[in-house]
Amino acid sequence: MKLARIGSAGAETPVAFVTDDTYVDLSDVVTDFDEAFFAGGGIDHIRPVVAERAAAGGIRPLLDQRIGAPIARPHQIICVGLNYRDHAAETGQAVPDEPILFTKSPNTLVGPNDDVRIPRGSTKPDWEVELGIVIGRRASYLDSPAQAREHIAGWVVVNDVSERAFQLERGGQWLKGKSAETFNPTGPWLVTPDEVPDVLDLGMRLEVNGIRRQDGSTSTMVFDPAFIVHYISQFLVLEPGDLINTGTPPGVGMGFQPPIWLQPGDVMELEIDGLGSQRQTVLAPR
Amino acid sequence: MKLARIGSAGAETPVAFVTDDTYVDLSDVVTDFDEAFFAGGGIDHIRPVVAERAAAGGIRPLLDQRIGAPIARPHQIICVGLNYRDHAAETGQAVPDEPILFTKSPNTLVGPNDDVRIPRGSTKPDWEVELGIVIGRRASYLDSPAQAREHIAGWVVVNDVSERAFQLERGGQWLKGKSAETFNPTGPWLVTPDEVPDVLDLGMRLEVNGIRRQDGSTSTMVFDPAFIVHYISQFLVLEPGDLINTGTPPGVGMGFQPPIWLQPGDVMELEIDGLGSQRQTVLAPR
Repeated sequence: MKLARIGSAGAETPVAFVTDDTYVDLSDVVTDFDEAFFAGGGIDHIRPVVAERAAAGGIRPLLDQRIGAPIARPHQIICVGLNYRDHAAETGQAVPDEPILFTKSPNTLVGPNDDVRIPRGSTKPDWEVELGIVIGRRASYLDSPAQAREHIAGWVVVNDVSERAFQLERGGQWLKGKSAETFNPTGPWLVTPDEVPDVLDLGMRLEVNGIRRQDGSTSTMVFDPAFIVHYISQFLVLEPGDLINTGTPPGVGMGFQPPIWLQPGDVMELEIDGLGSQRQTVLAPR
Repeated sequence: MKLARIGSAGAETPVAFVTDDTYVDLSDVVTDFDEAFFAGGGIDHIRPVVAERAAAGGIRPLLDQRIGAPIARPHQIICVGLNYRDHAAETGQAVPDEPILFTKSPNTLVGPNDDVRIPRGSTKPDWEVELGIVIGRRASYLDSPAQAREHIAGWVVVNDVSERAFQLERGGQWLKGKSAETFNPTGPWLVTPDEVPDVLDLGMRLEVNGIRRQDGSTSTMVFDPAFIVHYISQFLVLEPGDLINTGTPPGVGMGFQPPIWLQPGDVMELEIDGLGSQRQTVLAPR
């Protein structure tokens, strides 16, 4: 299934996409794709509903409706740093021995095509196309990566927007450069694992103003999603609906010589094979 | 006012304490002390209710009821590192030029007297008595520390429990050692600012098994609460009900020669003048 939330920001309706531009409505059976939904086994409950409605002709066109993030604001957003061999090389840093973790404020979550706003005082705003993991079941001290797979609700495209001066030059921990409003476009869909034959063989691309900047593959990830979920669960409790950004391939602005930073009016377009595409316009600070 | 939540974990009732062991019930006028409560100006709404009920004799004894954290699970918990001059010296690190920020998972929040559980694989569990700030109004790009004061709902006692090996020896970012379940005992009360004449002159103490380990004062803070809220609001949006741990004075286990780490069966007792006291028993990993 491809779960999504459509409508105006803060008042999204839960739906399941049938094609790239048609959906079946789920607002009469689901309140939201939130912690309670995942904790209650909601994905299993709606699967037959989606099939029946699609078969019965209950398919609607998206038309010009906004697509929101496919999940409600999560309990936490955890990110993995330097998780692509080729990206670590690009930034001049060693591949880590174990996952580097940092967080973003959950209220950075926005829809896949919403505007991204440069924060005040920013000098080095940057992009990062990433595979996101949505947690389906509470996860604590999981026994193995294999067990971790059962705790993954699905996959999303994420743009882990970053302000490199705030992240790296303002006092040691990365969250300062990761948590500005609009800094985590997510979606368009939450794609369930059954629709993704091999999550470690997905092409991922990002263009700025039509120029290809990132052109990578999940095949160069250092730590795979099942390992990441297993690993994080040894340190903290992952709640249903939590989001994990799993790191970015080469081609971020920071990696160019000289570096390339986002400017107001820039357009970012990104996609991961099978998981959909995003398009954001960059706005000046408010 | 001294707001609190009493009853079993996950089913707490909102109340206001009148003395250290009596309260008035607010469950018919307040759903919870959560984001919606603070965003809706709830503190102003309940102030006359608490006064009327106390005057009318609606005061009940706490008896042996559990006290939970005084706020519902927040959108985010942000912590300030090395924010006491004497603690920075103790750890051999320089006083930072600007606040060091890190996060804890929001689901670490527990009641002031709940057990603290050592995580699996832990070798260096440690304590930190701290002044906590609860955000009362959404805060973004505040103009000044003076303006930030209007966004503070009140003060809480926090034990910012830490696992030093996870924090400092496992890959660069601190959250790994801060986010284990039960690692953020909070309360007993959310004390509104009108009841605290000078938040920068509060004694704060922590004992382990009756031995005084921390004996400090908020007067040695490097960055004061209003400055911290103003500062954080330049990087991210603080939501109503968010919690900020403002750092710890000297005397953490890591600072002793040799270091002292928590052991199963240890009892931590901590307090801040006017904000109440906590008592936790340390449990072995589960």
